[in-house]
Amino acid sequence: MNPVDLIVKKRDGGTLSAEDIRAFINGYVADDVPDYQAAAFAMAVYFQGMDAAETTALTMAMAESGDQLDLHDAVPPGAIIVDKHSSGGVGDKTTLAVGPIVAACGLPVGKMSGRGLSFSGGTIDKLESIPGWSPDLSETAFRRQLQEIGLVVAGQTADLAPADKKLYALRDVTGTVPSLPLIAASIMSKKLAAGADAIVLDVKCGRGAFMETLEEARALAKLMVEIGARAGRQVTALITQMSQPLGNAIGNALEVQEAIATLHGDGPADFQILVQAVAVEMLRLGRPQEMTDEAVALDQVRAVIASGAALAKLRAFIAAQGGDAVFVDHPEQLPAAPVIEPVIAPFGGFIRALDARELGLTAVALGGGRAKKGDTIDHRVGIVLDAKIGNEVAPGDRLATVHAATQAQAEQACMRVLSAYTLAEEAVPAPIIVLDRISSQDS
Amino acid sequence: MNPVDLIVKKRDGGTLSAEDIRAFINGYVADDVPDYQAAAFAMAVYFQGMDAAETTALTMAMAESGDQLDLHDAVPPGAIIVDKHSSGGVGDKTTLAVGPIVAACGLPVGKMSGRGLSFSGGTIDKLESIPGWSPDLSETAFRRQLQEIGLVVAGQTADLAPADKKLYALRDVTGTVPSLPLIAASIMSKKLAAGADAIVLDVKCGRGAFMETLEEARALAKLMVEIGARAGRQVTALITQMSQPLGNAIGNALEVQEAIATLHGDGPADFQILVQAVAVEMLRLGRPQEMTDEAVALDQVRAVIASGAALAKLRAFIAAQGGDAVFVDHPEQLPAAPVIEPVIAPFGGFIRALDARELGLTAVALGGGRAKKGDTIDHRVGIVLDAKIGNEVAPGDRLATVHAATQAQAEQACMRVLSAYTLAEEAVPAPIIVLDRISSQDS
Repeated sequence: MNPVDLIVKKRDGGTLSAEDIRAFINGYVADDVPDYQAAAFAMAVYFQGMDAAETTALTMAMAESGDQLDLHDAVPPGAIIVDKHSSGGVGDKTTLAVGPIVAACGLPVGKMSGRGLSFSGGTIDKLESIPGWSPDLSETAFRRQLQEIGLVVAGQTADLAPADKKLYALRDVTGTVPSLPLIAASIMSKKLAAGADAIVLDVKCGRGAFMETLEEARALAKLMVEIGARAGRQVTALITQMSQPLGNAIGNALEVQEAIATLHGDGPADFQILVQAVAVEMLRLGRPQEMTDEAVALDQVRAVIASGAALAKLRAFIAAQGGDAVFVDHPEQLPAAPVIEPVIAPFGGFIRALDARELGLTAVALGGGRAKKGDTIDHRVGIVLDAKIGNEVAPGDRLATVHAATQAQAEQACMRVLSAYTLAEEAVPAPIIVLDRISSQDS
Repeated sequence: MNPVDLIVKKRDGGTLSAEDIRAFINGYVADDVPDYQAAAFAMAVYFQGMDAAETTALTMAMAESGDQLDLHDAVPPGAIIVDKHSSGGVGDKTTLAVGPIVAACGLPVGKMSGRGLSFSGGTIDKLESIPGWSPDLSETAFRRQLQEIGLVVAGQTADLAPADKKLYALRDVTGTVPSLPLIAASIMSKKLAAGADAIVLDVKCGRGAFMETLEEARALAKLMVEIGARAGRQVTALITQMSQPLGNAIGNALEVQEAIATLHGDGPADFQILVQAVAVEMLRLGRPQEMTDEAVALDQVRAVIASGAALAKLRAFIAAQGGDAVFVDHPEQLPAAPVIEPVIAPFGGFIRALDARELGLTAVALGGGRAKKGDTIDHRVGIVLDAKIGNEVAPGDRLATVHAATQAQAEQACMRVLSAYTLAEEAVPAPIIVLDRISSQDS
């Protein structure tokens, strides 16, 4: 494989063989293919695309470029390992609620998760709001906890898909991030390397997400389901709303509180709907004998919430990773921000738009997220929304509450939060949460 | 200027400002913009193109990235410095004949020239066939010779357009060579840095050239004329035939002999036509008061050939750079290859095609060119064509003669030369040499 020939072939709209793609990726990881050739290749792919076979070959090559987990020895014999991926967004604390629910339903969940960057938060950061809780587990501890409790959320303990890490960092500085096949291969390679037999994908759509239109989100979802099928994995993709933040809380401790409320059955409506939908799809993939039917799976999800089994699973999980489980029952005792300021509606109307990205960046400015890698985080700060798209407000009503470390930061954040709201005179419908479902179970 | 923003803007079809392009190129030369960003940028330009203003900005930024010559103090007051560029090809010894003709007409010619690579030869290599001749001149010697003799051909004594050198080397290994704006900026930046007031471009077209179709060649020519106009330079582009080699000789000493024959009025018809056309255009640009009219300029060109003034100029030029001028009058005494083998037509017909690239590569295989930079050259070897497109041959006629260092190489080369010929039963017209002319003088 001559890298230039491969770049030229893709540039001219040709189809690459799996062997060529594998050789290119292996060469890239080994530093035989330099960054500048990978950059030219990524830009050629941006313009010419890749078909499902090429994208699958890229996914597999990246998945096989590092460690590949097999967790079957840490789950009951014959159990299907189901992983979940969210394409990220603002206020997305889904794993915090879905994990305990699914595990309480008897389906083991062993996840490796990441930290937040820019406007998009990270599950590990959120969980670290709980004093004592740690994401640092040895592989042995990971497997033992998965076996004993059925729920683990760890940092990246293994060297999963190093080719993806390297290529993603390059794409970030070469203007080649928004390419459907490159996005799909990046997501799927990590999930395959993490040993998933089946995957539920939460593909966000809207202004707060990578995919701004439903059409783009559908194309990405279809491609990932197709890659899964070609790689012998069951995949279900939900296309979900990210035109505004998910739930009401944005900020680490605030989001943990909201997730706990949701496990009590008290979460915001949009977040509850999404959590239940994702949990249902995980059960349908993971327990195909009993729960392929959506209604059966949904009953089970509601049952473990109502019975407190999901909360009990959260307690055991927090404790197993060193956290103080008392906060599960008293989330109001989590470290709180010293300054709490309301954002007041200056005039009345219906909320027509609520800029998720701007709110995410405001949370970063408050210290609740990272502007760049390695920044430290203030887990206490953030924003809680009182009014979202479709709600009607009167002048003087509270739109949101800002939780800040200082008065000055609070005031600046209040201005930005206010600017994120767009009001209209006419009534606006509340957005639909789950916009579409694409599943390999249907084909 | 954030390099990623600039890449993204071009990727999305936007138009870049001259300031942004200059900052990007300056950053690239200073190693602040890494190769991988330049590679992604070049691929984005490959797909999205650049308009004339952007291409001019790129040209100027590259021209100004290193030394910039000003030769006006070495030519008569008010003289216009005219340079000539050929986009390369097989058998292209045009400078060897045009230089002495134009200088004999009183227009000073001070050129920096290059060496050959792959199937395309280089003027310096050809001149080095003449024992003693050297391209290595100090800048002072260059200026003195230009003043005294009016004709200099030197190697790259100055650091001209280092940005172009760096970007070209990168394009070569990232599949981004065949981009019209990048090709145009590369050619024009070197000419501007070399201090040309006016430029004659010989844009080759056909299978032995970069631009395979007339349409592509015209687009490139128009773009370079436009860049010239925006940079305040007069430019005339001739689009000329490169469907077969130029003239009959391919190989260094053989081409010097053919150039000398042409200065005697005895050159092959196609080469004579091209030499006269290029010389005429240089005079029209360089002496606009007297010679704007094509017929007047052509008369002058024919006069200096007929009078021997052009040959005398060649003698003086060779001697000034250390060469033995006796070879100008006795070119048959140039070092000759020990093995000379004819290529015989196995059957009769009209020659329909003659693969210039294959013949150029055969000359390289004989040792007359470089497969890679730094290879040494055997100046004696090469190919002389007896029959070209349009000629009729009978079985047993000689098609060409191979000049080789060994019998084995000669035999292999004879096979390849034969395979480069395509014969047809029907008569084929001889190709037109000058296909089009595009000049800033016409607008």
